[in-house]
Amino acid sequence: MIYQREFRVACAGHGDVKDVTAEVVRLVGASGIRTGVVHVFVVGSTAALATIEFEPGLARDLPVAMDRLFPPDGSYGHEQAWHDGNGHSHLQAAALGPSVSVPVAGGEPVLGTWQQLVLVECDTRPRERTLVVTVMGE
Amino acid sequence: MIYQREFRVACAGHGDVKDVTAEVVRLVGASGIRTGVVHVFVVGSTAALATIEFEPGLARDLPVAMDRLFPPDGSYGHEQAWHDGNGHSHLQAAALGPSVSVPVAGGEPVLGTWQQLVLVECDTRPRERTLVVTVMGE
Amino acid sequence: MIYQREFRVACAGHGDVKDVTAEVVRLVGASGIRTGVVHVFVVGSTAALATIEFEPGLARDLPVAMDRLFPPDGSYGHEQAWHDGNGHSHLQAAALGPSVSVPVAGGEPVLGTWQQLVLVECDTRPRERTLVVTVMGE
Repeated sequence: MIYQREFRVACAGHGDVKDVTAEVVRLVGASGIRTGVVHVFVVGSTAALATIEFEPGLARDLPVAMDRLFPPDGSYGHEQAWHDGNGHSHLQAAALGPSVSVPVAGGEPVLGTWQQLVLVECDTRPRERTLVVTVMGE
Repeated sequence: MIYQREFRVACAGHGDVKDVTAEVVRLVGASGIRTGVVHVFVVGSTAALATIEFEPGLARDLPVAMDRLFPPDGSYGHEQAWHDGNGHSHLQAAALGPSVSVPVAGGEPVLGTWQQLVLVECDTRPRERTLVVTVMGE
Repeated sequence: MIYQREFRVACAGHGDVKDVTAEVVRLVGASGIRTGVVHVFVVGSTAALATIEFEPGLARDLPVAMDRLFPPDGSYGHEQAWHDGNGHSHLQAAALGPSVSVPVAGGEPVLGTWQQLVLVECDTRPRERTLVVTVMGE
């Protein structure tokens, strides 16, 4: 059995981290699937999905750490071609990855108490993001 | 067809890397599924899964490299709120990711000879981890 | 429904980034699956898969950034045991991960216009890589 839905999330710009767990839990419930896997994907190459404890400290620590590893003021070939100032955004998003997938058991995603699904906006300007949720199972 | 099982792994603490390949191979065999994908997930936000050649050198190199990128003695907002000393653990786990998925063919995970499935403990204290294995296919 | 195929990609060596989107789109089309997820996996522990905007600037920026984070001239336990000069290759591949999975809708992978599926060669010598594509859905 397959169930697929999209939803949209408005992001304020670079470093915005949004908790999307509740909407994913809701869609898994709506799917009627009890056992399987839920796959969540963000369309586009300058945003990422991750799991993290969603609290204000870490929601700031994660983008700060990504900026240290892939600095906004670094020298990127992407900039020389496009001059859109988001070379670091592409690299951060590629490193974190565009999807997360979580087992479903008893009709719910199996997550730790302190483990949330988050959308990480890496682009330099506000973006409305499309997430695709696919629940596979029975 | 869906087959799902949990198993537990005792980890000694930060930097412990455990080879979980044999148990995943065993569960794929038990599932009876010949062709598909096996998804392995660790519950909790301070451990991760990865594929790596499991030998003593790399089993040490990986956590050392993660400590260099996300230092235990860094300044984290998470610490200011919680004082539990594991801000870097959360970031390392988020960067590596909580799951790996591997194709199944001929009733076995398709892995390279030098490619193992490993659990990477990022937390600062011994933990018993729950892994959820979901095999999807036919 | 499950559809699985392999294909091979010749890589020139460290830092070679290959766009594999067209072949994955072709296989999803051939599968006849309209709604689901396509999982793409590279066999072996010194190559990775990612999504990125495939343009010459970023195709160079990504391996350059990975070399900065996991330097080829670093000191690795793997080297002391094996002397094959690719400790950094293993770490880069583990950090990026061996698979990507993308939703399928309307018989096609759902990707952004500037979001391609790429194979990232991290090893130090030319390699022919095997990719396994599994389409799950209906």
